Amino acid sequence: MIRNITIRDRRFALSGGAGSDAVHRDPVYSYAVTELTDDSGVKGTGFAFTLGEGNELVCKAAAFYASRLKGLDIEAVMADFGNLFNRLSNEQQFRWLGPHKGIVHLALASVTNACFDLWAQKRGVPLWKLLTDLTAEQLVATLDLSYLEDVLDREAALALIRGEEATRPLRESILETGYPGYDTSVGWFNYDDEKVRENCRRAIGRGFGALKLKVGSEDAERDIRRAHIVRETAGDGVKVMLDANQQWTLPAALKICTSLRSMNPYWIEEPTHPDDIAAHGVLAAAIAPVPLAIGEHVPNRVIFKNYLQAKCAGFIQADAVRLGGVSEFITVSLLCRKYGIPVVPHVGDMGQLHQHLVLFNHIRLGHEALFLEHIPHLQKQFVHPVQIIDGRYQTPQEAGSSCALIDP
Amino acid sequence: MIRNITIRDRRFALSGGAGSDAVHRDPVYSYAVTELTDDSGVKGTGFAFTLGEGNELVCKAAAFYASRLKGLDIEAVMADFGNLFNRLSNEQQFRWLGPHKGIVHLALASVTNACFDLWAQKRGVPLWKLLTDLTAEQLVATLDLSYLEDVLDREAALALIRGEEATRPLRESILETGYPGYDTSVGWFNYDDEKVRENCRRAIGRGFGALKLKVGSEDAERDIRRAHIVRETAGDGVKVMLDANQQWTLPAALKICTSLRSMNPYWIEEPTHPDDIAAHGVLAAAIAPVPLAIGEHVPNRVIFKNYLQAKCAGFIQADAVRLGGVSEFITVSLLCRKYGIPVVPHVGDMGQLHQHLVLFNHIRLGHEALFLEHIPHLQKQFVHPVQIIDGRYQTPQEAGSSCALIDP
Repeated sequence: MIRNITIRDRRFALSGGAGSDAVHRDPVYSYAVTELTDDSGVKGTGFAFTLGEGNELVCKAAAFYASRLKGLDIEAVMADFGNLFNRLSNEQQFRWLGPHKGIVHLALASVTNACFDLWAQKRGVPLWKLLTDLTAEQLVATLDLSYLEDVLDREAALALIRGEEATRPLRESILETGYPGYDTSVGWFNYDDEKVRENCRRAIGRGFGALKLKVGSEDAERDIRRAHIVRETAGDGVKVMLDANQQWTLPAALKICTSLRSMNPYWIEEPTHPDDIAAHGVLAAAIAPVPLAIGEHVPNRVIFKNYLQAKCAGFIQADAVRLGGVSEFITVSLLCRKYGIPVVPHVGDMGQLHQHLVLFNHIRLGHEALFLEHIPHLQKQFVHPVQIIDGRYQTPQEAGSSCALIDP
Repeated sequence: MIRNITIRDRRFALSGGAGSDAVHRDPVYSYAVTELTDDSGVKGTGFAFTLGEGNELVCKAAAFYASRLKGLDIEAVMADFGNLFNRLSNEQQFRWLGPHKGIVHLALASVTNACFDLWAQKRGVPLWKLLTDLTAEQLVATLDLSYLEDVLDREAALALIRGEEATRPLRESILETGYPGYDTSVGWFNYDDEKVRENCRRAIGRGFGALKLKVGSEDAERDIRRAHIVRETAGDGVKVMLDANQQWTLPAALKICTSLRSMNPYWIEEPTHPDDIAAHGVLAAAIAPVPLAIGEHVPNRVIFKNYLQAKCAGFIQADAVRLGGVSEFITVSLLCRKYGIPVVPHVGDMGQLHQHLVLFNHIRLGHEALFLEHIPHLQKQFVHPVQIIDGRYQTPQEAGSSCALIDP
């Protein structure tokens, strides 16, 4: 029975330009943390990610949702979590503040993730193991598929999961080899050219086969110069992704993305406003075969459905600490599987939670084991930080979702 | 110079089922109020609307934005308000909590509306008068047109406004006749059949030529029965709108909207999830010529642009206390004018602010003077409540935007 609920506002200053992009010159990586402790003393930890200011508002909204869980048994909660998620996300007065987006939805992510962590802690298994071992029915019972009826109802979700069962053993070797990572920290926006060059060399030396550069400068020439620096330093065998953090208007994106094609980007990420699905459609058609990657700022399954229907995203960057938590992340992963689009999470959690979820996506849903973003900056804050060897995430063995933070 | 900033959390309980719809069984109409007082003692009041729970979070976010205005001169602020709006809405840490949606955007609406009110108060004119008398350049300088470049840049906005100048005098007669209203309160969700019948008769007796009924029951037969009751009581000469408050899945909406066509609805409002533009496109095509009305839960100009591009909305129900305030409301009204779609605001403000904005839309932008929603429930809370005579909003004469609330 869930006895104690604690909400914590945790903020971590970054240094030396780390975390900077075209929009965020000075972010403070922050977590709105929900801790659920049951009467046996087991504690589940979940959080949503913010960039500092307003983290306290997410905490307050999380306290509102979490209060509904007091006195409940976690196994009973998780046996019907999809319906609980539906009820909480549609709480009649709070709903106006979204619906299903913004602060209230971030808060729901924090609470949802604490539930999944507590569940795995109680069972004494890593979250990836718990999720891969559930029956298809148990798994779908944790999901809220409402407003997806036109493309993915309960029966279709069950069929999709069952359809991957036969080939599952082939994919379990990933647990031994580890899940590939990619390095996002070679080219933060504020880094100068020499630092970018040096970081590229170091990342490749550490075994990464894919790197990401922040673009979206007011000066397009800067973007083009830096992109070519990364390509030249990395060579043709390394994947290079470009991330514009929504800075371009559609006319500007059409122009600069066309120029950037010459350095052969693996994807171009968040070229313009994340709500502008139509603009992404126009851009994707214009710059094909270079694909777009989106999702960091897409708040819920319904908008992801629209993106997938519009066929303009080559990669979906769902984030379980931005969406409504693990439950909606799985829902979006199912949608992506249906549309044949890879899920490459944005890692507001620094990969702690997502290392479990990409293993699940690969083993259970049959998603390709492409690579998972790696951001090292908060590594020392976690009780069980991710382990990267030769550019690969090592399979976590601790019980839970690896989200417990070291006490301040 | 803005000297004092006060944020107030005002909540008003409703009684007897008023305000109820398919989602909101028990709303508490609430305002997150921003008051800006300048050193001459003039006070500007603006607010965002919520349904109760969480109104305090909007207040806290509004305090964050409003603090940026301290010490500024309101005329200087408004001469370049579009850029200020752009900077505030993209404040680099806060932006993650949206962007441009949810609690942070509601908060920005509250602060924006206080600025427009203070501006009109200082000039000693009603807001509709101030807005209709600005030059095209001054008007466009209050707008943030970013991310609309593909359909409406600054030059296109100016041309659109100037193009309506010649015919403007013809439309000023609306100031004498008053702006038509429609009655939303005949059929709240919780009202029984007899009360709906009685309310219809009373509304028609009071001069309303258009009525709205809440639908979206779990029992489709109830919706159909109530819709026919309103049609039979009102007769064929009255417009009847149906509002489902997002309760239907797409498959359900396709079925029930087809049934509802027989009572000839003027529009069907919010049939399904407000983020699901693709579903609205499918539904609009299936039930044509019955049009859809959407907007109450659409948070920003970018998503409205996508709705307009998808050509699935026959009416756009922008709300200046839900969008980023008066500024973004005007931007959306310009977009709608470009696409030839009428703006029929949702009135979270009970029409206090929107009575000014629809006069502006008609006189200055050439929008048709269709009708404005009328909800009487908070009438006694305002210093200058709207005046309805023979079903028409009488032109407000007091300085400002009519948003000042009576002190508790």
